[in-house]
Amino acid sequence: MADLSFDNPLFKQFAFYSGVVIVKTMSMSVLTALNRIRKSVYANPEDCAIGKAMDKECKPTLSDPTVERIRRCHLNDLENVIPFFLIGLLYVSSGPDPATALMYFRIFTGCRLLHTVCYMCQVPQPSRALMFGGGLFATMRMAVDVISKTC
Amino acid sequence: MADLSFDNPLFKQFAFYSGVVIVKTMSMSVLTALNRIRKSVYANPEDCAIGKAMDKECKPTLSDPTVERIRRCHLNDLENVIPFFLIGLLYVSSGPDPATALMYFRIFTGCRLLHTVCYMCQVPQPSRALMFGGGLFATMRMAVDVISKTC
Amino acid sequence: MADLSFDNPLFKQFAFYSGVVIVKTMSMSVLTALNRIRKSVYANPEDCAIGKAMDKECKPTLSDPTVERIRRCHLNDLENVIPFFLIGLLYVSSGPDPATALMYFRIFTGCRLLHTVCYMCQVPQPSRALMFGGGLFATMRMAVDVISKTC
Repeated sequence: MADLSFDNPLFKQFAFYSGVVIVKTMSMSVLTALNRIRKSVYANPEDCAIGKAMDKECKPTLSDPTVERIRRCHLNDLENVIPFFLIGLLYVSSGPDPATALMYFRIFTGCRLLHTVCYMCQVPQPSRALMFGGGLFATMRMAVDVISKTC
Repeated sequence: MADLSFDNPLFKQFAFYSGVVIVKTMSMSVLTALNRIRKSVYANPEDCAIGKAMDKECKPTLSDPTVERIRRCHLNDLENVIPFFLIGLLYVSSGPDPATALMYFRIFTGCRLLHTVCYMCQVPQPSRALMFGGGLFATMRMAVDVISKTC
Repeated sequence: MADLSFDNPLFKQFAFYSGVVIVKTMSMSVLTALNRIRKSVYANPEDCAIGKAMDKECKPTLSDPTVERIRRCHLNDLENVIPFFLIGLLYVSSGPDPATALMYFRIFTGCRLLHTVCYMCQVPQPSRALMFGGGLFATMRMAVDVISKTC
């Protein structure tokens, strides 16, 4: 019942929720690229060729506010979504209560989707801080379970 | 014997050591947040509301030495702990000698915990470089095993 | 047939290709360290001791073009290789068509190796953009499969 395969319904649910947050995370790459092209702000000199092909003036810069905001959101995703996945994988294989596990997956996924909305739309604080905290809570709670079952 | 489940004693040991280093890595997020609040240095303009609520002057900045040091340590963790986990998972499923595997897990975990101590307390070099190297050695050694068993 | 163990030939192939791209990613750490020492550009004041031991003048800096280029390449690897691994793991356990799966692993690995060549040798664009896109396509295609099989 606690194996990492699609025969295990909990693993299948984990695959769904973690699939969603990983796709969300990767979509920040696309958003960064689109904004670099739109605003012609590139990190590398050779990238200016893309702008020139579009007849735009090129400003190689690492300080455009929009692009840097997207990149901070992306890095925050990496810092949170990847630990969630890794801990979640160990947690699923530890044979937890399925209803509790599903609740953690849903809390994490909901919080991280709303975290991105807060970051991108500059929703007043402490909205983003709370969403960050909710996601961290879910991962940490599972991590405590994994460590206490293995030590 | 080489399956990824808590029935496999080596997987259980892997879950313990990797759980510890992932929690260590995530705790850098909390440390960053605490220092941002303590010193009122935020990356985003809207975050200043947190400082204002506490009646502090806000300086949105990306160059506070304490915060940037914690962030460099966090990024270094991501660059090392995540590859350790991913390679370690493949390594455990490749059916290695359990005693050797346990030794690599312990070298990695010990080195990364000391790496953080060296980074945060500014212990003179080459302490941090050696701890970084020890962790990298453990992961690379497992990676060589995985690749040589699969190609 | 869809279990995460070396008895599953597809998992073994996944282990090989993901092992290669993870080793590639970790090697950026070594490349960064070598270039920091060669050019005596360190991020932390205490690291200058390494340069002094080699009788070089120390410039703690975060803006050396060579080092920052390697770091951007490293971060881009983390942003792409880790999601590939996580999604790939879910994908393998979903029991996909082995030939299709192997093709995605090869597209991803080939694109990411060439992406590094393009980044390090400053090959004119859109070479690097295409290699980035090819890798992202492979991961996203697998992610769509995982999510559609689980929701």
